[in-house]
Order: sequence, then structure tokens, then C-alpha cells
Amino acid sequence: MGEFELIRRYFQHALRPDGVALGNGDDCALLAPAPGMRLAVSTDMLVEGRHFLSTVDSEALGHKALAVNLSDLAAMGAKPLAFTLALSLPRADEAWLAGFSKGLLALADAHGCALVGGDTTAGPLNICITVFGQVPQHQALRRDAARVGDDVYVSGTLGDARLALEVFRGKAHLDAADFATVRQRMERPTPRVALGLALRGVAHAAADVSDGLLGDLGHILAASGTGAELRAGDIISSVAVSPILTSAAAHFLPDFALNGGDDYELVFTAPPSARAQVSQAAHTAQTPVTRIGTITASPGLKCVGPDGAPVTLTTRSFDHFA
Amino acid sequence: MGEFELIRRYFQHALRPDGVALGNGDDCALLAPAPGMRLAVSTDMLVEGRHFLSTVDSEALGHKALAVNLSDLAAMGAKPLAFTLALSLPRADEAWLAGFSKGLLALADAHGCALVGGDTTAGPLNICITVFGQVPQHQALRRDAARVGDDVYVSGTLGDARLALEVFRGKAHLDAADFATVRQRMERPTPRVALGLALRGVAHAAADVSDGLLGDLGHILAASGTGAELRAGDIISSVAVSPILTSAAAHFLPDFALNGGDDYELVFTAPPSARAQVSQAAHTAQTPVTRIGTITASPGLKCVGPDGAPVTLTTRSFDHFA
Repeated sequence: MGEFELIRRYFQHALRPDGVALGNGDDCALLAPAPGMRLAVSTDMLVEGRHFLSTVDSEALGHKALAVNLSDLAAMGAKPLAFTLALSLPRADEAWLAGFSKGLLALADAHGCALVGGDTTAGPLNICITVFGQVPQHQALRRDAARVGDDVYVSGTLGDARLALEVFRGKAHLDAADFATVRQRMERPTPRVALGLALRGVAHAAADVSDGLLGDLGHILAASGTGAELRAGDIISSVAVSPILTSAAAHFLPDFALNGGDDYELVFTAPPSARAQVSQAAHTAQTPVTRIGTITASPGLKCVGPDGAPVTLTTRSFDHFA
Repeated sequence: MGEFELIRRYFQHALRPDGVALGNGDDCALLAPAPGMRLAVSTDMLVEGRHFLSTVDSEALGHKALAVNLSDLAAMGAKPLAFTLALSLPRADEAWLAGFSKGLLALADAHGCALVGGDTTAGPLNICITVFGQVPQHQALRRDAARVGDDVYVSGTLGDARLALEVFRGKAHLDAADFATVRQRMERPTPRVALGLALRGVAHAAADVSDGLLGDLGHILAASGTGAELRAGDIISSVAVSPILTSAAAHFLPDFALNGGDDYELVFTAPPSARAQVSQAAHTAQTPVTRIGTITASPGLKCVGPDGAPVTLTTRSFDHFA
């Protein structure tokens, strides 16, 4: 199987949403955003042993490779339009490719996001996706748009993917059913695209939680020139942490929830006057959100416990070169 | 040096052309093509040992990684706007990074093409660039637009990069000055962006010569449902081959010129009525072009020698998995 046959067999994608004027097969794809729209663009590269284990099922990997990119669109309030895939493979393994393309294109179809080009080469396993989404000119959920007094929210639950990773590493233990649940969270994350769209015109700032809540909220604070005060209780002993993490890994809980990473939830801010709209957005997107703190004028990230006393926070964002 | 410091130190890019509404530092960049324009998108991934030798100077590599992507924009007649860079590095080697970013951003500046985002990770050396350009809605130089009777042209000279590669491999020999010349062609190719722009509204179909002239012209013929007749003499013993290749590597010449690859010239078609306009475009772009054949209704690629007798062609496009 040669390079062109590989593309034809596994990565031909019939989906052509409005806005894709020309798909793959030429030197470039041609995209045509609708008038008044901005094209949101993001790139993520996944390397074996760094971002996924060599044992991972290739269908799950295909899903995750696109999901982490769609998560960036979600965090801008952008609607998925198209993506390119560059793939470096040690060899053209047909079973692997069949699974990978199935997981990848199923998620692409679910989001109306067309594969419009890319590159394939021989080499160490490396997956690089660049994704494109559309967002109305003045409704992008930027990191620099948090305002003093805004509520801080996080979607879904935090720390599950990290718990699964630590089970793989032998540092935490779960029964089979719980492990299967958190392993799904690690290997097949759900990008919060529907929530991002529902928050257009409601939220001020947003980011996706890929490196850990404290680190990613920290990016919002730095870009917006603000600080925040978080209520630890609202994160750690509330709906923002799954029952499995609460019951099975109490020792790790604060660190996994606050610094776990690989969550692909959204952290966002919105004015107190928009609380009903945030609830409505969460309902529309069928995605729970938890209010966890407030944006402050004084810089830095503070945390108070259930009793109102300060809690010490340690930010441990993942850094590939630190 | 951590991941964010690495980005700040080497890949902060002040250039913000019109059409880039938000650069790097958020979940996505935001692009805003001008009204009536299409956004042309292409991705190329470069892997050590496959696309470049481990001995290559990192500044040249930074140049080449962007140049091969700009070449795809050139082949669509698109004007460079922005790009993303995903980089997997074995370690954060400062001397390497300083050279790489210098070569990369110098070429980006020369083309007004802004670095607007990307990803960095630890792993085997891998460079993945996705580039964006603008082209008026109906002026893209598509592969499927060749028409029977069109002239076939190629820009610049062919086979030099391949000759340099074979010198590295010990299969060809050149004196130092000639080697330096062809090595530049291999390591620092010139994307024919100016020619692509000048050919808008003049050429019908175009592709860039990355896998070899016969292979890339073959893509145009397949997409357009046509054949072509090439005049071997006009390619092999004419301006489309450099004097170095003609004099130093006569034995390899036909194969290197027709199947060499890594040329990053443009192969394109235009009607005979546009010959003066093609000459004007070549003059405007300061890029020589050679007329090498004709598009035919009968499928397939035929070649005739200087005496009019058929010449047997063997297409050997590079295929990573063949």
C-alpha cells in the first residue's frame, strides 16, 4: 500500500460543509468563512509515549487526536469547519489505520468538521492536526477578556484522566468498572464544543483545561491582567469532581482536580448578571458547569477552603521542557 | 528553559498582516480573509532522516520547513497570510533553536506570513507547518483546470536538489563550488510565490514540483482528465536544467530532471493565446519559465525527443510507503 492508496483508503472524507470550497487532492484546500465570521485556527501535535501510551487502541487515539483540537475551538466559541491531518507512521499498518481513521472520522462527522488535507510520511509515530472553526467577529471567547467581578466556572469534572494515568502507572488503584470509566475520560475526551457555542455572547473569557485548571486559569488571569479567588470546596467536594475520584483517590484529589491536566473541560468567566444565561447555556449544551470563584483586581490566584481560610495552591502545569 | 519560555524566546513573531485578527497566545488564532477571498490551507510534515539529513544547518532547516509549505500556496496562486508551527524536539537545544527560528522567521518576514500559533513537545525531531494564504474566489490555480491544447510550462530548473542528495550519498561527485550551488537548491529552496501570484488569471492549472515533474504533472492530468505530450529536448537540454547538472551528471540527467523531486518549482498550463502574458508573469516574478509540452485529449504522458521520436518515460514519484 503506497502513500496515495493509504490516503484514499483511510482518509477520504465525503463531508463538505458550507465554507469548504475545495477539499483535499490539490496543493491546498480552499476555505471560505461566511461573511462577518473569523476563522479560528489551532494546532496540536501528539507524540507516542508523551501524549498517549503505545498500548492505546488506535480508534480511541483517532478520536482523541481530533478531540483535543476541537477543545481549542470550543474554548473560543468557534463552530468546527475543517481540519488537516499530518501523520508520521513507522509503517503502514492496516489494522491500526482502519481503527485510527474510524475514530477520527466518526468524531469529525459528529461535529460537521471536514478532513480537507494533510501529509503522510514514514517516521516515528506522530499525529499533528490543525483545526479550523468559525466564530462571529465579536463573539470569540478570548483569554484576555475576563473582568473584575466575573464569576469563574468550570465544566464537567476534573482529575479523572489523571487518575486513569496514575492507575496505568501503578500509583493508584481502582476496581475494573471505575477504571473503565476514568480510562474513557483519558482516552476518549469529549470536547465541549456545544458549551462553547452556547456561551457566545454570555461568557467573557474562556480556555480549555488541557494542562490543569490552575495553569489554564492562570493563562486567562495573565492575559486579562486580573487575579482570581477560588472556593476550594466548590471544586473539590462538589460536582466538579466525579464520585470515582472522590471515593477512590481522596489522597490525590486536590492535586488531580487542580493540576491533573488532559481534562478538556472549559474554564470560563461571566458576569454575575449572566448567571441565568450560563445555566441556560449549560442546559442547552447538556454539560454541567460549576461556579468555583471570582475574578479579582489584585493579581494572583488565591483559594479559600469551606471555612473561608486560605488554602495553599501549587500550580504544576505540564511543561515538556521544564 | 520551559515550553512557554522556548516559545517566547524563539517564536514570538511581531508580524501581524491584515487578515490576522488574533495571533498566538490564545486557544486559537483568528483569521479574517478579505471579502471575496478564499483561504488556501496546506500542511507539510518534515521528519529527520526522511526529509532532511541530521547534519543540516538548523537555519537552513527553518527556511526549508516554511518554504515547502509556501510552495503549495504558490501553486494555488495564493498570497501568504499566516502559519502555525508544531515542533517535536528531543531537547530544548538553544543553538539549534536560535538558528531554526532565524531561518524560519526571516522567510516568513520576506513573505509577510505571520506565525500565529502552534505546539511544542518533547519527542523525535518533527516539524509540522500549516500555512494559510488568500486567493480571489475564482482565481485559484487548481489541479483540475488544465484544458486540451494548453501549453505546459515549468519554472526554474529541475534536478539540482536531487543531484545534491546523490553527492551526499556518494553516488555523484561535484567540485566544491558546484556542490555549494546545488546544496543551496536542496537545503534552501525558493518558493515560487511571486510567480504563482503573477499567474492568477493567466494559467489554468498548476502544481508544485515536490515529488518530481512527471509525478506532479501526472496529478494535474489525472485531476483534469487529460494527457500531455512533453518535448524532452526542451526539458533536458534547455534552460529547465542547470548547467551544473548538464555538465556534471549527464548520466543521471534525464532521471534527475524528470523524477528528481524536492525542486519546489511550479508546473502549470496556460492556453497558447496567453504566451505573452506568461512571459510577462515570468518577467514580473523574475522567475524563468520554460514551455515543455502540450495538454492532449488522449490520456497519459508521452514524450518526444529532439528528433520527434518517442522517448520512454518512467515515473518514479517518491512514496513514503511504497
